[in-house]
Amino acid sequence: MTDDDIYHVDGDLVPASEATVSVDDRGFRYGDAAFETMRAYGGTIFAWDDHAARLERTCEALSLAHGLDASDLRARIDETLAANDLADAYVRLSITRGVQPGKLTPQPEVDPTVVIYVKPLPRGGLEGDPVWDGPATVETVETRRVPDEAIPAAAKTHNYLNGILARAELEAGIDEALVCDLEGRIAEGATSNLFFVRDGELHTPTTDGPVLPGITRDIVRELAQDAGLSVREGRYEPVDVLAADEAFLTNRTWELRPVASLDGRAIGGGPVTDRLSALYDDRVEESCYR
Amino acid sequence: MTDDDIYHVDGDLVPASEATVSVDDRGFRYGDAAFETMRAYGGTIFAWDDHAARLERTCEALSLAHGLDASDLRARIDETLAANDLADAYVRLSITRGVQPGKLTPQPEVDPTVVIYVKPLPRGGLEGDPVWDGPATVETVETRRVPDEAIPAAAKTHNYLNGILARAELEAGIDEALVCDLEGRIAEGATSNLFFVRDGELHTPTTDGPVLPGITRDIVRELAQDAGLSVREGRYEPVDVLAADEAFLTNRTWELRPVASLDGRAIGGGPVTDRLSALYDDRVEESCYR
Repeated sequence: MTDDDIYHVDGDLVPASEATVSVDDRGFRYGDAAFETMRAYGGTIFAWDDHAARLERTCEALSLAHGLDASDLRARIDETLAANDLADAYVRLSITRGVQPGKLTPQPEVDPTVVIYVKPLPRGGLEGDPVWDGPATVETVETRRVPDEAIPAAAKTHNYLNGILARAELEAGIDEALVCDLEGRIAEGATSNLFFVRDGELHTPTTDGPVLPGITRDIVRELAQDAGLSVREGRYEPVDVLAADEAFLTNRTWELRPVASLDGRAIGGGPVTDRLSALYDDRVEESCYR
Repeated sequence: MTDDDIYHVDGDLVPASEATVSVDDRGFRYGDAAFETMRAYGGTIFAWDDHAARLERTCEALSLAHGLDASDLRARIDETLAANDLADAYVRLSITRGVQPGKLTPQPEVDPTVVIYVKPLPRGGLEGDPVWDGPATVETVETRRVPDEAIPAAAKTHNYLNGILARAELEAGIDEALVCDLEGRIAEGATSNLFFVRDGELHTPTTDGPVLPGITRDIVRELAQDAGLSVREGRYEPVDVLAADEAFLTNRTWELRPVASLDGRAIGGGPVTDRLSALYDDRVEESCYR
């Protein structure tokens, strides 16, 4: 970051050096905050309604009644993009429970802290290159996903140590950790959802397990169904992925990223991955450029 | 907080209004930080060596090589106490992984952010009153402790949403949430360890489960053994506590706090709780005042 970068913090546009929060903010003390990672394409936030809805679900799970409406949040994002003169960007928006009296027990009266961070991210897609360097090398890790009974996986929060511990297990040069639940079934990557193709069918771990309902994941499922592909959500083990014809990861930043290898064994993308990637690019084109 | 309160942030004593961290700090973004909660009695940090050792174990669990030695951290705490003119105080020290390039994957080169916060906390103990208003009302909650396979319970980190969700379940006026593991065995309170007395024996959940190895917990076990009490660590269910003769919670702030009731049924302290409280007060007296 440089001081040319402008952040939106607690209602104000500020240079990076002033983009700070109090050490008493519950977002810092406890990771007591909700967030969304988005992409702006040509100045438009892709799938904004889905992000706004998931943010609300996270805040409900945390009993975090921030009192801000989606149009206010969207306006702050647009201001931040404009201040940084960005049309194609990575966008992160966080809402914390702010500073409260007392200690751990959350209080109903919330003066939230809203933080927006943007950085340039070229479009990729139809006319460009993907943002990733190449297909992802993936390894299964020992760290297990936090179960829903402890913290709901559907809540996207600043409590991200589980993913950090997963990534910390990886050898240098490996891109993503594949994390299983306590029973050894695949949940997701540290920051991505997994899909694989076997015998012409598309498979992805069910959100009945501790799996974040990724917005890219939802769009890919929908695109696949619309294209006549059979889409199955189930409980899988790494061995199922090793036997797959194709595999790819999804998240906002990567969009669809083929899995080069899992645990050192080659898998790769293929015709289904390519087709879904093209359909995804079309969707972005329709949503943000027309 | 007021601007008369002085914090120690990133090496400097600063007024509360300047006690901030970058929104890019991993402590804010991900709760990627270790912390300890301590008490100063008469200007001395009680059981400092134990806190320094546990902090190191947390940092090892997080692969957070901060490069600071314990004497440096202790000096910062002492400076903060002096700047606030405090001898009897609550002290919280946090070490974050700081700002790093890239996103989630932690990098080995760490420029840590150290934050120290202190506030007045009268001694209590031998000559004073306890810091709590009265024995604790406790309720078991639906939220389950994060299992060790996801995040080691022995690591004391800024990922505290699990405890927040537990506390958020409580009705007004209830002091503490009793949290069970995924199998329904008692783990601990949201910010405390549990002990109970039955037939003259002292029981506490084993740290083989997802239980923070509390420093007050360790001291109480040691004091009980020295006093000839039988101390058992095991796996218990709430029904075992309901059948107890006495029960109490421990943490740094509360020291020993009797459990008035669990799920609406009276339990209370008693002669064993009183005796261990007196022995604990003696230990503080010996450690910090002689």
